[in-house]
Amino acid sequence: MDADLTPEAPAESQGQTDAVTELLGAIGYAELTAGLRMAADALAAPGLGVRVWMGRASSAELEHFERIVTRLKEMGQDPETVMEPFIAPVDAFHERTRPRDWLEALVKIYVGDGIARDFYREIAQHVDEGSRELIESVLQVDEQDEFVVGAVTDAIDADPAVAGRLALWARRLVGEAIAQTQYVAVEREALMTMMVGGQQAGVDLADLGRMFTRLIELHGQRMGRLGLTP
Amino acid sequence: MDADLTPEAPAESQGQTDAVTELLGAIGYAELTAGLRMAADALAAPGLGVRVWMGRASSAELEHFERIVTRLKEMGQDPETVMEPFIAPVDAFHERTRPRDWLEALVKIYVGDGIARDFYREIAQHVDEGSRELIESVLQVDEQDEFVVGAVTDAIDADPAVAGRLALWARRLVGEAIAQTQYVAVEREALMTMMVGGQQAGVDLADLGRMFTRLIELHGQRMGRLGLTP
Repeated sequence: MDADLTPEAPAESQGQTDAVTELLGAIGYAELTAGLRMAADALAAPGLGVRVWMGRASSAELEHFERIVTRLKEMGQDPETVMEPFIAPVDAFHERTRPRDWLEALVKIYVGDGIARDFYREIAQHVDEGSRELIESVLQVDEQDEFVVGAVTDAIDADPAVAGRLALWARRLVGEAIAQTQYVAVEREALMTMMVGGQQAGVDLADLGRMFTRLIELHGQRMGRLGLTP
Repeated sequence: MDADLTPEAPAESQGQTDAVTELLGAIGYAELTAGLRMAADALAAPGLGVRVWMGRASSAELEHFERIVTRLKEMGQDPETVMEPFIAPVDAFHERTRPRDWLEALVKIYVGDGIARDFYREIAQHVDEGSRELIESVLQVDEQDEFVVGAVTDAIDADPAVAGRLALWARRLVGEAIAQTQYVAVEREALMTMMVGGQQAGVDLADLGRMFTRLIELHGQRMGRLGLTP
């Protein structure tokens, strides 16, 4: 045999597996709650069209949730146990970001969904193959940004003051999302290491900060598409 | 040729088509709203298990809604236009039956889903083949009654007074559902004729009443499975 052997893939460490499990638990509960909240917010939407769109967004989130539950079971985990620690921070995020009207609700879906996608793309590189496939399948679900862009643009045309209010709202959403993610990450070293792509313990908040910076840049581009100042 | 000709199937009348369209519009909006309400109610559920279960029930309703939208489009109809007239009665039903806690929300899903299934079975015989296939596919979605039966039985074991309250609640749900269905039906003769399986105009409220009686009998059997007086 040739001496030019390809290096063996390193065996997955227990820490890595635990981190992926935690990550799926966090994402799973976040998707479940996002789906249920969207549906609740949809009931306050003025027209049938908006209600239907928000109902579809809700269904998509609940479907992601089901895929994560399936994956956790494949990994021999109990989904409820794994999600339990993330109930408090996710619920806190939503308590602190209750939309005052359906327009804020739409922007919340747009901003939240966008950041979630970018976050998934970041972490997809650092997880095992089965989990990567799951994350990529979730990313393939059709993006329905056009509807939000149209609705927000129309609302700003009708009342330009809306732009300032929604820009502030979007900033608050991102701030709260980052705050809650930090709370979760600082208490879980293996999870934080994996999220920033580190190979061993010893990553710090600065690494996490750099990932947030990348996410905020992409968020800014999305805000621009809405016609809002990031 | 033999004289023993099989009679030709009567061509579908325009009235029949209109009635099926109206029926799908009514069911479609009812499923959409039921799905969104269930999700909203799920947010108030105490444990993750109940929230997940209700989230799944919500997804199933939203999926039925999507199938009805697809069918209406196949029939060349605009789903939103067709659903519009049913917004007021369906919303009125929900305004008048707001669950005070998650247990009432669970019973609402159980009762509502059960009656909807029986109603679909009744009408499936009277509609065109494409619509019948749709209705039957919706009926095939797995029934998850066991969860509700377990939760309600546990709650009654813990506090027997719950049984009386939930029995009253279920009665109110059925009463309101029948009232709103009557409002809808009496204004739409073709729809009412089709619902009760009549071949021509001239059916009356007594025919509708007989269908309701059958649905109430089946509802009573379901209440028995919950350990509640119908």
